[in-house]
Amino acid sequence: MTWQDTIAAAAAAAPGYAATDPGERARFLVAAAEELEACAPELVGLGMAETGLGEARLTGELRRTAYQLRLFAEVVVEGAYLDVRIDEADPGFAIGPRPDLRRMNVPVGPVLVYAASNFPLAFSVAGGDTAAALAAGCPVVVKGHSGHPGLSARTAEALVTAARRTGMPDGVIGLITGQQAGIEALQDERIKAASFTGSTRIGAMLARTAAERPSPIQFYGELGSVNPVVVTPAAVAERGAAILEGFVTSVAGSAGQLCTKPGFLFVPDAASTDDVIRAAADVVPEHRLLTRGTSAGYVDRRGAVLAAGAHVIADGGVRTDEDGFVWARPTLVETTLSELVAAGPDVLDEVFGPFSVLVRYDSLADVTSALPVLFPGNLTASIHLAESETPTVAPLIEAMSRIAGRVLVNGWPTGVSVSPAMQHGGPSPATTIDSTSVGTAAIGRFLRGVCYQSVPASLLPPAVRDDNPWGVPQRRSPAGASTSWGELTGRY
Amino acid sequence: MTWQDTIAAAAAAAPGYAATDPGERARFLVAAAEELEACAPELVGLGMAETGLGEARLTGELRRTAYQLRLFAEVVVEGAYLDVRIDEADPGFAIGPRPDLRRMNVPVGPVLVYAASNFPLAFSVAGGDTAAALAAGCPVVVKGHSGHPGLSARTAEALVTAARRTGMPDGVIGLITGQQAGIEALQDERIKAASFTGSTRIGAMLARTAAERPSPIQFYGELGSVNPVVVTPAAVAERGAAILEGFVTSVAGSAGQLCTKPGFLFVPDAASTDDVIRAAADVVPEHRLLTRGTSAGYVDRRGAVLAAGAHVIADGGVRTDEDGFVWARPTLVETTLSELVAAGPDVLDEVFGPFSVLVRYDSLADVTSALPVLFPGNLTASIHLAESETPTVAPLIEAMSRIAGRVLVNGWPTGVSVSPAMQHGGPSPATTIDSTSVGTAAIGRFLRGVCYQSVPASLLPPAVRDDNPWGVPQRRSPAGASTSWGELTGRY
Repeated sequence: MTWQDTIAAAAAAAPGYAATDPGERARFLVAAAEELEACAPELVGLGMAETGLGEARLTGELRRTAYQLRLFAEVVVEGAYLDVRIDEADPGFAIGPRPDLRRMNVPVGPVLVYAASNFPLAFSVAGGDTAAALAAGCPVVVKGHSGHPGLSARTAEALVTAARRTGMPDGVIGLITGQQAGIEALQDERIKAASFTGSTRIGAMLARTAAERPSPIQFYGELGSVNPVVVTPAAVAERGAAILEGFVTSVAGSAGQLCTKPGFLFVPDAASTDDVIRAAADVVPEHRLLTRGTSAGYVDRRGAVLAAGAHVIADGGVRTDEDGFVWARPTLVETTLSELVAAGPDVLDEVFGPFSVLVRYDSLADVTSALPVLFPGNLTASIHLAESETPTVAPLIEAMSRIAGRVLVNGWPTGVSVSPAMQHGGPSPATTIDSTSVGTAAIGRFLRGVCYQSVPASLLPPAVRDDNPWGVPQRRSPAGASTSWGELTGRY
Repeated sequence: MTWQDTIAAAAAAAPGYAATDPGERARFLVAAAEELEACAPELVGLGMAETGLGEARLTGELRRTAYQLRLFAEVVVEGAYLDVRIDEADPGFAIGPRPDLRRMNVPVGPVLVYAASNFPLAFSVAGGDTAAALAAGCPVVVKGHSGHPGLSARTAEALVTAARRTGMPDGVIGLITGQQAGIEALQDERIKAASFTGSTRIGAMLARTAAERPSPIQFYGELGSVNPVVVTPAAVAERGAAILEGFVTSVAGSAGQLCTKPGFLFVPDAASTDDVIRAAADVVPEHRLLTRGTSAGYVDRRGAVLAAGAHVIADGGVRTDEDGFVWARPTLVETTLSELVAAGPDVLDEVFGPFSVLVRYDSLADVTSALPVLFPGNLTASIHLAESETPTVAPLIEAMSRIAGRVLVNGWPTGVSVSPAMQHGGPSPATTIDSTSVGTAAIGRFLRGVCYQSVPASLLPPAVRDDNPWGVPQRRSPAGASTSWGELTGRY
């Protein structure tokens, strides 16, 4: 099957799949989880062989992948994502007679999902983007990542089996491969939205491609993030060693190949750090990087920061094996806030891999004013503080909420929960369009609003009908209810 | 004040304005409505002199403008737009311990609003985009439209008065003018989102500008739409003359300078139409177009369709006065569905002004399959039908929901209500990003999600605190509640 055939099948499946009721769609998502679980050992084995990630990590990731599919099944059945609003006809409406208006979210149509390299299960063929798009009612065409082709094919097979078993239209899920196909598919007018997790460079190129189509579409890119972490003086005094050990663990996890890896740790000038960090880094085993591309990128970016003159605390090295993969242990360097303010993108941009920069600061006020300038767009921003400091750090927390989608206190940004309140997305360059790619709110990316005006009940979608056969939340504006302006004017 | 100063003031106002509580922000919006009402005769007079629109239309528009501001004051106080989600910490969470997570929407920062020419009040300086952005907590920089500079300045003055009267930070609302300033302001990194209502050509140029910034931002363009209307055979038989008269009225309103003007009316082959249409068009008075630019564009686009060989039913002409403005009465032409399928953009694209095309069809099945191909992106799609036909038109209604943001039965798309269920936006080219620019859902364009993880109550924004001092809707996921997968698996 060519990629054109796969898109044609997705387009053909779109109306039928959009018309599935919540039970049918949920059954498919749960079946997908079951099919993945049924071949878990095979999937984990493929993943280990292809990505260099370990068994525990991949087993956990498979559990998360299945969980996400089931979570979105619940989202579909619950129905709040449809955001149903019913405005009753109101002949006396303030700005002229109001007809019967019923608004709901509908699927945008076939979605192109670019699989990520660093989550070969949870953000690949059957990953979060796929689960969200399928839950929204959109067929999904996945552009498989070249880093784990066997795992991708096997995962797609499981999804196709789940779709057939639950009577979904053929083409509801498809897999394409190859760089050129991935770009041309984005230009295909039958694709109505796309999502991507990867580098700022590739993401920006794809965003341009999506914008330059005759009919531009939304391109949801989850790109670079350096995830600054601030440690206050009181926190250092209280539990400095534990924080530094937690830092190294967070940087080292999955060999630093996580979009939420803390790339910069701000510590007070006087804090003693090097011995603890060196000791913690020394016990981290050497880890293979995901792909040859990741390997080359890590060598490049790590080299650029080192060349800029950062002081090396722990040097985890880079060793290239005969297959062209880099093996590394954490490299941790240090600089000062004033040097960082003078630095360019070579130092400030993300280094994807087990690398991080300690930044020494004079005062928290300096950090508060520098953060938005240095790092305006991040997935996360974190602070480690002592309880006594809560009143004084309020401005810093506020600054963090301006530059990040998730603000953490006394925790590490790696390890992203999948739940209604999660936000995995932030100002540019963290994401291309304000949205989240993790958690139930991710479904919103693949929906658009449609208002039905004076449409007879027999022609309305079930979700916006008065008899509400799906039992979804409906927000109703009764006739006459909008005449409370006088009261409001009085109140304010 | 230069445009740079205006943006600097907006950026300086952003944190303080974002921190206003719902009551303060609502008081400002209500005060804005009051200030506009207090100088209503002056504003209407300026509008009549500058735009050629009539007193009744502008008086109604002012009422709508004030209404929108008050409506968004209610949205702010009610608080559902914050989409607050609280996931309680859950040590036994399915995919690993879940920390305390609290998500809410926050303002994106200063917004650049390009005023529209055709709604000098309701979509200009104090219009819908401004009301939505201010309600979201974003300072607004309006790029005034050159078609009504005096009205723009006077409106801005009223908003500034309202802001001062209610203690809002200086710079929360500002006005800039000039084409070049409008483009450069969009490139300014302090601007965090932009909205625009206007032509596809200018909109596409601005969308590119927004995308090419070092930090790209969301550009909400409400661009072209032809708003197809289908009349079924039974509807013609039942009330053909009334429908045709309604059509001419809808095309003629505000001299056709409305984004929801029906640009194409699909009628059965055999329907007799010309006499009724000619009679209805003949009684429409000549109307001046909004600007010289609109005038030139209308002459061009009308000429292009006529040159393509459409049969003229009623020729409302174009007369250019000594100031360069065109005066016109409705021009209505006719073609066949098969000719339309063979036509190019000269015929298919929007004609902004009192012009529309009747399209004769053989069967509704032909219309159902042709519509998505001819007109893939619209603000509205409408059908006039007889009650007996409701079962047979279901596929056409479904096709309409795929190509438009609002689907109407037995009504005309002009006259857009402002309410929770309204959707004014549709697939490209109708809008650049799936969203609505009319109705309360428009506030979502100027918000982004932030998740607070394990943040102590004293550092949390009021909306996500357990004591909920603002009394906003909070969606809570209790610990242990996410273990219902077994049950779900059993159900589906």
